Amino acid sequence: MIRGDDMSKILVVGSVAYDTISTPKGKAEQTLGGSANYFSCAASLYSDINVVGVVGDDYAESDLELLRSKNVNLEGLQQVSGKTFHWEGKYENDMNEAITIDTQLNVFESFDPTLPESYQSSDYVFLANIHPDLQIKVLDQIKEPKFVGADTMNFWISSQKDRLKDVLKRIDVLLINEGEARDLTGEWNAVKAAKMITDMGPKGVVIKRGEYGFMMYSEGQYFMLPAYPVADVVDPTGAGDTFAGGFFGYLSKTNEGFNFGHLKQACIQGCLAASFTVQDFGLGAIRSVQWTDLEKRQAEYYNVISYLD
Amino acid sequence: MIRGDDMSKILVVGSVAYDTISTPKGKAEQTLGGSANYFSCAASLYSDINVVGVVGDDYAESDLELLRSKNVNLEGLQQVSGKTFHWEGKYENDMNEAITIDTQLNVFESFDPTLPESYQSSDYVFLANIHPDLQIKVLDQIKEPKFVGADTMNFWISSQKDRLKDVLKRIDVLLINEGEARDLTGEWNAVKAAKMITDMGPKGVVIKRGEYGFMMYSEGQYFMLPAYPVADVVDPTGAGDTFAGGFFGYLSKTNEGFNFGHLKQACIQGCLAASFTVQDFGLGAIRSVQWTDLEKRQAEYYNVISYLD
Repeated sequence: MIRGDDMSKILVVGSVAYDTISTPKGKAEQTLGGSANYFSCAASLYSDINVVGVVGDDYAESDLELLRSKNVNLEGLQQVSGKTFHWEGKYENDMNEAITIDTQLNVFESFDPTLPESYQSSDYVFLANIHPDLQIKVLDQIKEPKFVGADTMNFWISSQKDRLKDVLKRIDVLLINEGEARDLTGEWNAVKAAKMITDMGPKGVVIKRGEYGFMMYSEGQYFMLPAYPVADVVDPTGAGDTFAGGFFGYLSKTNEGFNFGHLKQACIQGCLAASFTVQDFGLGAIRSVQWTDLEKRQAEYYNVISYLD
Repeated sequence: MIRGDDMSKILVVGSVAYDTISTPKGKAEQTLGGSANYFSCAASLYSDINVVGVVGDDYAESDLELLRSKNVNLEGLQQVSGKTFHWEGKYENDMNEAITIDTQLNVFESFDPTLPESYQSSDYVFLANIHPDLQIKVLDQIKEPKFVGADTMNFWISSQKDRLKDVLKRIDVLLINEGEARDLTGEWNAVKAAKMITDMGPKGVVIKRGEYGFMMYSEGQYFMLPAYPVADVVDPTGAGDTFAGGFFGYLSKTNEGFNFGHLKQACIQGCLAASFTVQDFGLGAIRSVQWTDLEKRQAEYYNVISYLD
């Protein structure tokens, strides 16, 4: 798959951050992170990306350069005075669950996303985990999106449920982790919860299950696979956003909007991208992944899930 | 797949029990259970089974008739005076984990497995979760097994680790759940734990992951799939033993001993069988499953995991 000039464009709005992360494998302080960064590193392997977000004046030029070097458009990334968003978290033995120690919104607190004109014709839109009001504000500025996906988190599910429901009515696919799907629906069984989520609006849902992979559901059809088996999981932070990046990258490349067959392949690409992210702290692993790395891993993955021989 | 007269024989040694089970879906009192029963209901769809076990004089004739009606050989099932083994447990919202309330060994306490002569030439042997001493005692009585598998549980891992390690050296495949794999190896990462288990003796290991399916590992190769998606899980008791039943049933039918390709198909058959078990309390669902039910579910399962379209 070669990137072409006529490709559809992906817009992502999300956090750009410096994180401090502890896991059983060590600790990384003030490491580059944020959903928009994770997403863009993966999605830029397939397509052109427009980033919407905000950073402080402490944000390093070299960190901007990382995305620029991947042809990511940063016209919509505001740099304002103040400190960049900061998340501190840890993982214990169960790497499937992050424990938040501290969140400092900093410049994100007064973030008012205004899209550059060139962004308004984006075809594929990913509303990463931010306040539902901001997700809607971004969506309102896009003329005719072909496909819209969103993520969210427990905090918005409990504190902004009505506003979140407005978001759900306007998107094609919700990408959400298993605990959040439970919180959103009150249902422990993921098979049921998936269906309940589509009853809230989106045509499809992808429930992300960490090392257990994903469950996608749309219109009576399920598609499920385990994650690529990684023996040395160093830091799961950003795995979900990287999954979304691979997912949207593939979709925008095929550029047919909502198509279940393409969504299946998109989930697989999401899995592959996420499998790199967890191998190092922060963006350490995913930032240098090349197309050939993805192809190699896809062959290995197919070997692990191949059920017809 | 039609059962033939020249098929290889499976021997299973395990518990035969009356269980009392509470789940969020209700409660079943003194319901027929035990690993040997679950295993036999599934495996008898493929092959002839020899059961080794013990029941008390309270064990109902109709419960013996259940297995007899499936052509299961009960010559090695001792009936002695006393009460049948009883387990009481419950599941809360997380159906992946059983909480034991009470275990009454009863006639199992003095169980001394002596194999009828006709059993001693069994080709496929499943040592269900019982004391490692009993597993070895059974194995010692079998002349030339083609393939031996075993299960175990946390209690034996902590109290009989050395004896369990003797078992591991004599089996081809360990079938174990994810929490037990962690306890046995001290490793949280299942990808690593699987490899560590094979270093203890068995050529392969199948880690059972409840609704997340299974991970099989042998000699550098992994095979992983999610479980068949069941929206109404009523009672997960016996799912693992039923998995083993489908697994051994398939293997004995193909009758080539250890062959990774066949083991993959065996895992799939295990998944399918287990997916019926969880749909009702105890043996309620699996006892009446027919070959056509398995075939239909296999088609549905392949649809859910099919990744090449």
